[in-house]
Amino acid sequence: MKKKAVVLLSGGMDSAAVVAIAQEQGFEVHAMSVRYGQRHTSELEAAARVASALGVAGHKVVAVDLRSIGGSALTDDINVPDAGTGDAIPVTYVPARNTIMLSLALGWAEVLGANDIFCGVNAVDYSGYPDCRPEFIAAFQALANLATKAGVEGAGIRVHAPLQYLSKAQIALEGQRLGVDFGLTVSCYQADMDGKACGHCDACQLRADGFAAAGMADPTQYA
Amino acid sequence: MKKKAVVLLSGGMDSAAVVAIAQEQGFEVHAMSVRYGQRHTSELEAAARVASALGVAGHKVVAVDLRSIGGSALTDDINVPDAGTGDAIPVTYVPARNTIMLSLALGWAEVLGANDIFCGVNAVDYSGYPDCRPEFIAAFQALANLATKAGVEGAGIRVHAPLQYLSKAQIALEGQRLGVDFGLTVSCYQADMDGKACGHCDACQLRADGFAAAGMADPTQYA
Repeated sequence: MKKKAVVLLSGGMDSAAVVAIAQEQGFEVHAMSVRYGQRHTSELEAAARVASALGVAGHKVVAVDLRSIGGSALTDDINVPDAGTGDAIPVTYVPARNTIMLSLALGWAEVLGANDIFCGVNAVDYSGYPDCRPEFIAAFQALANLATKAGVEGAGIRVHAPLQYLSKAQIALEGQRLGVDFGLTVSCYQADMDGKACGHCDACQLRADGFAAAGMADPTQYA
Repeated sequence: MKKKAVVLLSGGMDSAAVVAIAQEQGFEVHAMSVRYGQRHTSELEAAARVASALGVAGHKVVAVDLRSIGGSALTDDINVPDAGTGDAIPVTYVPARNTIMLSLALGWAEVLGANDIFCGVNAVDYSGYPDCRPEFIAAFQALANLATKAGVEGAGIRVHAPLQYLSKAQIALEGQRLGVDFGLTVSCYQADMDGKACGHCDACQLRADGFAAAGMADPTQYA
């Protein structure tokens, strides 16, 4: 029997590659997407397309109302800035988002009896988000092993961030090697209802640069 | 100006005492309750009563659909057992609940600019929940300081669990000293719509024993 893994799947290109990587490592993938009040809900439709195309064992969408907490351009009526507007933590930072999402993945892992959690966080393109750093992932794994039955009584929890040290170009190439159709994914912070990308936010810029650096055609549909 | 703290307020007696303790320590309390699909929603009404009676600066209810993750008698159609049915982790354990709730509190703390989070977890009455142990709280604080702007750029995050080493009787006496009306609180795992307690689940038993050991009248309304 294959070992189960919970994979956080946003619908963007990074987490799509992570699903394929977890599958290549022999895991039965249970994909989890989080409906957190994001303005760009076309991301969730992309997640469903990716989950289906990659043949995951299960796909669950969990709702959490981060909009009621507020504080980010991704959930509030703050304008998403164009790319490259500084080194500070950007206004698109959603408070505690990765902590919350990994916590939800941890809960589902416990119910499934999975000891492995995968996420697409990335240190190279980290872009000022504190909860994308390697030391954050290590601290979450330590927490997970104190927080759960599997940690206390069982085989332990491992948190995998296989893209941690990859550039966007390397992620694109790795996904291509594994047969990921990036045309199904949506990375844009303000994609329209059809999943068409704005072409000028941070996420669009990183993605376009990644395909270019990889020498791949950009399958993104722009508005 | 008072320092702000986010206090997790379930509506039970423990977290009501924690609100009063945080206020006594000089914090402006922003209480957060989590609607996580619990069967006993009268707990949330109790939280609103307690928040109002103690005059908190704000009270927010955040919804997260833990029912879709499943795995607990508190959210699923599993019977809540009577008290004292063993040392193993009980079926009322909600997967990753405290991890998720502290994550949500952390998100709100970031938005408010609060550096302090209070919760009512308790090691003495811990009753088999791995995420109520002191080492879990310490690990969450370590994570919080890596995950957030306040940890990376600011004054750091402190996670307070002031009931950690108190017995239920000590909690009852501390709450009484601080003027908490425990008659407003609901602890029962399967309270009815009016907040009336079953009188025989683990939570009811611990609470009744606590008042008895403290020599206090039990203000609980039983069904």
